[in-house]
Amino acid sequence: MTESWLDEIKWTEEGLVPVIAQVADSGRVVMFAWMNRESLKLTVENGYAVYWSRSRQRLWRKGEESGNQQKVIDIQLDCDEDVILLKIEQQGGVACHTGRESCFYRSLIEGQWQTKEAVLKDPLDMYKK
Amino acid sequence: MTESWLDEIKWTEEGLVPVIAQVADSGRVVMFAWMNRESLKLTVENGYAVYWSRSRQRLWRKGEESGNQQKVIDIQLDCDEDVILLKIEQQGGVACHTGRESCFYRSLIEGQWQTKEAVLKDPLDMYKK
Repeated sequence: MTESWLDEIKWTEEGLVPVIAQVADSGRVVMFAWMNRESLKLTVENGYAVYWSRSRQRLWRKGEESGNQQKVIDIQLDCDEDVILLKIEQQGGVACHTGRESCFYRSLIEGQWQTKEAVLKDPLDMYKK
Repeated sequence: MTESWLDEIKWTEEGLVPVIAQVADSGRVVMFAWMNRESLKLTVENGYAVYWSRSRQRLWRKGEESGNQQKVIDIQLDCDEDVILLKIEQQGGVACHTGRESCFYRSLIEGQWQTKEAVLKDPLDMYKK
């Protein structure tokens, strides 16, 4: 398979593309992260999300520690070819490192960011050595 | 109202935050854009999405030309405080400048980005002078 589909993406100067992870069934947006060319290629090949960790500057196989892998259902590209929407099936039902389903668990209410979602899994259990 | 909720956001070096726009009712992710402090403040004050256009380097009141405004239903912040999920009601049912509901209208199928969604409005009609 040629990789012209990778060439069509407008990568940032750092060679990255922003990725929105959305649960395919429910439509819940659970995460936002980045991919580089290699991680997107691996994502397609493996069928599971592989991101590029900007803080650790290395490939980040989502769920490698927590077990909360993201099975790829669909990969969508936006009109400007510079953002990816990843439709996934979230293993374990938890995407956020805080143990919640989604990283977006706070809403702006009366001028304050208020937590609206419970912790489903103890982060200490997810990341124990 | 104090603006401490704005201070809690981790802005990029350019003073921006990425924003995912999602239709509140359907869960459809329709757009990805950026806001600066002023545009986010205006978004909250007006109740309609105001972005920061990086290409034009100015405030971009979504729908100012096309009429496709985005009414704000909920503003959510992620665990790292550096991404916003904007739940909206999409006026006119079209978010994309191509005249489609969503900017994410292509899927990767057999190694190609294939268009899966019809144009609902002629862009020439949306952006006529």
